[in-house]
Amino acid sequence: MTADNATRLENITHQTISEEVTRPLPASSKVYLQGSRADIRVPMREIALTDTQLESGSEKNPPVRVYDTSGPYTDPDACIDLKKGLPDVRTAWIETRDDTEMLESVSSQFMQQRQSDPALAHLRFEHIRQPRRAKAGNNVTQMHYARQGIVTPEMEYIAIRENMARAQLAQSELLRQQHGGENFGALIPEQITPEFVRDEVARGRAIIPANINHPELEPMIIGRNFLVKINGNIGNSALGSSIEEEVEKMVWSTRWGADTVMDLSTGANIHETREWIIRNASVPIGTVPVYQALEKVNGVAEDLNWEVFRDTLIEQAEQGVDYFTIHAGVLLRYVPLTAKRVTGIVSRGGSIMAKWCLAHHEENFLYTHFEEICEIMKAYDVSFSLGDGLRPGSVADANDEAQFGELETLGELTKIAWQHDVQTMIEGPGHVPMHMVKENMDKQLKHCDEAPFYTLGPLVTDIAPGYDHITSGIGAAMIGWYGCAMLCYVTPKEHLGLPDKHDVKEGIITYKVAAHAADLAKGHPGAQLRDNALSKARFEFRWEDQFNLGLDPDTARAYHDATLPKESAKVAHFCSMCGPKFCSMKITQDVRDYARDNGYEVAGDEIRMVDVESELQEKMQEKSREFREQGSELYHRV
Amino acid sequence: MTADNATRLENITHQTISEEVTRPLPASSKVYLQGSRADIRVPMREIALTDTQLESGSEKNPPVRVYDTSGPYTDPDACIDLKKGLPDVRTAWIETRDDTEMLESVSSQFMQQRQSDPALAHLRFEHIRQPRRAKAGNNVTQMHYARQGIVTPEMEYIAIRENMARAQLAQSELLRQQHGGENFGALIPEQITPEFVRDEVARGRAIIPANINHPELEPMIIGRNFLVKINGNIGNSALGSSIEEEVEKMVWSTRWGADTVMDLSTGANIHETREWIIRNASVPIGTVPVYQALEKVNGVAEDLNWEVFRDTLIEQAEQGVDYFTIHAGVLLRYVPLTAKRVTGIVSRGGSIMAKWCLAHHEENFLYTHFEEICEIMKAYDVSFSLGDGLRPGSVADANDEAQFGELETLGELTKIAWQHDVQTMIEGPGHVPMHMVKENMDKQLKHCDEAPFYTLGPLVTDIAPGYDHITSGIGAAMIGWYGCAMLCYVTPKEHLGLPDKHDVKEGIITYKVAAHAADLAKGHPGAQLRDNALSKARFEFRWEDQFNLGLDPDTARAYHDATLPKESAKVAHFCSMCGPKFCSMKITQDVRDYARDNGYEVAGDEIRMVDVESELQEKMQEKSREFREQGSELYHRV
Repeated sequence: MTADNATRLENITHQTISEEVTRPLPASSKVYLQGSRADIRVPMREIALTDTQLESGSEKNPPVRVYDTSGPYTDPDACIDLKKGLPDVRTAWIETRDDTEMLESVSSQFMQQRQSDPALAHLRFEHIRQPRRAKAGNNVTQMHYARQGIVTPEMEYIAIRENMARAQLAQSELLRQQHGGENFGALIPEQITPEFVRDEVARGRAIIPANINHPELEPMIIGRNFLVKINGNIGNSALGSSIEEEVEKMVWSTRWGADTVMDLSTGANIHETREWIIRNASVPIGTVPVYQALEKVNGVAEDLNWEVFRDTLIEQAEQGVDYFTIHAGVLLRYVPLTAKRVTGIVSRGGSIMAKWCLAHHEENFLYTHFEEICEIMKAYDVSFSLGDGLRPGSVADANDEAQFGELETLGELTKIAWQHDVQTMIEGPGHVPMHMVKENMDKQLKHCDEAPFYTLGPLVTDIAPGYDHITSGIGAAMIGWYGCAMLCYVTPKEHLGLPDKHDVKEGIITYKVAAHAADLAKGHPGAQLRDNALSKARFEFRWEDQFNLGLDPDTARAYHDATLPKESAKVAHFCSMCGPKFCSMKITQDVRDYARDNGYEVAGDEIRMVDVESELQEKMQEKSREFREQGSELYHRV
Repeated sequence: MTADNATRLENITHQTISEEVTRPLPASSKVYLQGSRADIRVPMREIALTDTQLESGSEKNPPVRVYDTSGPYTDPDACIDLKKGLPDVRTAWIETRDDTEMLESVSSQFMQQRQSDPALAHLRFEHIRQPRRAKAGNNVTQMHYARQGIVTPEMEYIAIRENMARAQLAQSELLRQQHGGENFGALIPEQITPEFVRDEVARGRAIIPANINHPELEPMIIGRNFLVKINGNIGNSALGSSIEEEVEKMVWSTRWGADTVMDLSTGANIHETREWIIRNASVPIGTVPVYQALEKVNGVAEDLNWEVFRDTLIEQAEQGVDYFTIHAGVLLRYVPLTAKRVTGIVSRGGSIMAKWCLAHHEENFLYTHFEEICEIMKAYDVSFSLGDGLRPGSVADANDEAQFGELETLGELTKIAWQHDVQTMIEGPGHVPMHMVKENMDKQLKHCDEAPFYTLGPLVTDIAPGYDHITSGIGAAMIGWYGCAMLCYVTPKEHLGLPDKHDVKEGIITYKVAAHAADLAKGHPGAQLRDNALSKARFEFRWEDQFNLGLDPDTARAYHDATLPKESAKVAHFCSMCGPKFCSMKITQDVRDYARDNGYEVAGDEIRMVDVESELQEKMQEKSREFREQGSELYHRV
């Protein structure tokens, strides 16, 4: 720990988080929908819109509610204090189930050591929660409850949250022109009920990552019959970044739409960094425990063993990590299959386990101890994210024997996890050219019996370092459409360096685009509402509404102002692209006005709702026939 | 013209273009392949690579040649002088055909006026070429020659250019792992011959936009059996931008990969701006002539007429514009179909024509005069880009009756153009959700009898203003895969403001990603070479090679240096993402070394080429069996 880092930490413990990260988004307010009990309060963001100005007066535009991952940070009524952590959402629900107990002390030896080391006092989160664990013989997973027929408050919360866009359908004319979708066998219902959530979780088709030691969590669901989710990665490395930076990146990610965040720290103070992150996270936190286990054996993969790994799992489970990436499918027999590859093994976890397997000539200990891992997972409700340690690192290596061999093994492991009622999702690639993307989804659904798929991109070409948020955003949108449940973001710095805040935002927004495009293509009820509201605002030159309905109002506004900086330009009935005389939207308006002013007016004053009168149709067709005949003549004359 | 603009023009006429825009790309040299005659010299960019360092010595990596749109600007031997224009490429070819004549003076009245107005002297390009036109009764289109069975030098040039990636196949082991493709009925040959080019042009399945008045052009082809092309838009507007800026944007676009550039100027001095652009452009230049025609009638759409439009076509044809967007499919009977839309008519050309039709109660004069337009096109070999004036401006309006009605009309017009041997491509949308993209391609192929499709994106969602290069890049990659021949770029400023140089580059690179991803997915022979070369460099920590093989070496290097600024970091065997101890690529290398050092070594010193020995296979499988058995036991024990 350098003096500089110590100073940075001062900032975390003695200051509130920066205003840039917490101020409400423009024209937005936080609203909560209450469920069947007073403590089920589901947050959403409501975007207020201005009126449409018509010649005959003005017309109201109803506010648009959008799914909100930003947590209490964007609630002006919330008191944010990073050193205290977020308020409790779920403790009462967990306690009511009466199947867990508070532990006197943490179970992990490593954690005990860290917590009692006075040299770490200045780094340590002050309000560490007392850990909770299932009572002996109990299974506390959401899947277990679901299979018992129990609808948990988490499930009800999620139903309200997922149903939000649908709830606006009835109130809005904007979905008149919503398109159907092509959803490749997904079963997206017209209404999301708590019972539907329960059923999907029981079936294994969706997971609710929600560790009992993460009561700050606002529950969410990952499954292909729900909205497509995205994950943002953060984490320090040996080369830099402080705890403060990582906490701020986590909050920043959720501000722009990260549904979960993975802490992939590999540098110093992994344990303490994670504590700060979880206590301040309203979204599920995932980790790759082998990263920390490797640190505990000084970075020597061969020295890894089940005991140190097991202790790491328990340490992280008692901190509140919601899902673990476990590379249990990297089997000894698959490792040689990667030797011919252009880029070998590119998954960090995968290559660590491959090295371990070869060094010991033994089967991957995560595979041989898999049921013991399940026992730990179900005592805290940590979900599996079964890692694709052999994912391709280049389009050349896509869909090869090693990759698909591992996928089959992940399918076997899924079934074992399900025998323990442990929630499970499956990680996927990576680098895959477009025409080979669907095969990944199809094989995953088949081998893993519809457990949720969670892919990294995939990148559809390797030739654009610096733009891999885009190369991967293309693959992500496509695989999301085909049925992938969660998309792990890629930032512009992928392959090149550590992402800063700007890169994190660029990655998140790109992946929100991909996820939303997938929701649209799947025909998710209500998904198109936001598109239509934004397009209507755009057409009506309601500039502020256009910015505010977008995924990134700040950037949209800044881009507009770069060309037309004056405030008056934001109420102007033309755009900066074409200038005042030449705007196609203005001309379209003129076309409508002309039609109206020349006897083609329709009832009412709502131009948008105009239906073409039969009179107009008739006149036009007559004229049109006339000119087609003239036109046809011309073709013979020339 | 303000004093400021005059000063800017001084820069253009008295200075050479800025070094940023013309310096060769890193590690790249310009090479020319000669055809059957000395003046067929096809440029390509050759990227030199460093050696791979092996324990047993070093291994050469052959240079990689890539398609090069940057023209003489990146040739250090070329003498660039914007006020003189680019050197001549095609005049001898044109003259040899002996079917054209030089005109004493320009045919357009407007052009005569502009050229003799002393007030414009300071704006005027100094070395205006004498215009050329087909001799009476001659048709000088590439399609006409193709249908006569003539292989033109342009066709041979294109065959060499398109065949380049294939030519490297034999020399490279890197394509060992090239994947096939799924190309939806495209007929991509193993070798591109001049005869194949001729045949495709004769069939109408590809076009070679190459006005006889644009001899500076380096010929290229647009068609779905060739590499997917991209277009960059530039152009001033009433709100700003000087001639100098537009010329620099044009050169900048081609530097990063624009295959054609459209000059969409709508502001002042359109005529003079275009002259500067064409004389300095090595790529085809497209325009939308109705924009200038509208300026000539003071922006009043109703005042447009055939005479002013016709004069504009001739003016631009004699300047050397290679393709014209003509909105001849906006028929009177389609206009009312847009009244119910969320965003009406968003094409500028489309809305101008719609307004004209309604005002006059007459059929679109571009439609009624279509064969007269063909007569002009074939006298200069200007290609049609039949405009989609009724394209959707929001996902709500995608694939509607108005859009597909117009598409059918464009199909009719294609057949008329083909009767005149006029080369024709078809413009497409716009805003289309993913599941509706393919229908656009399928309908276009059907109605337009496989004439090349040229789409704007499409944007797959409306909710991300500021990121529409990405929302549209997704749709562009997909439709390129399905068979779209050229993708019109969208910049981050779309819908918001005028793109600056940074935005232009961002748009171009995004679209190069989309086009290349499409080439890969279609299984274009040789397309994967660059991916594999880059991935091999990445795997071997040849950082400079990784940067230089990328679409944007400057950004890749800058991103790397943001984390690890020292020069030594670019030869380090780890990357900044994971730090020195934790790199998966390093571990994979260790895995291979371990295998080799433990009796599993293969013949030769080429680790990349390693085939897994049967011995290794056997040992692994034995070990693996053993541990699976142990594993299976474990599952029963727990």
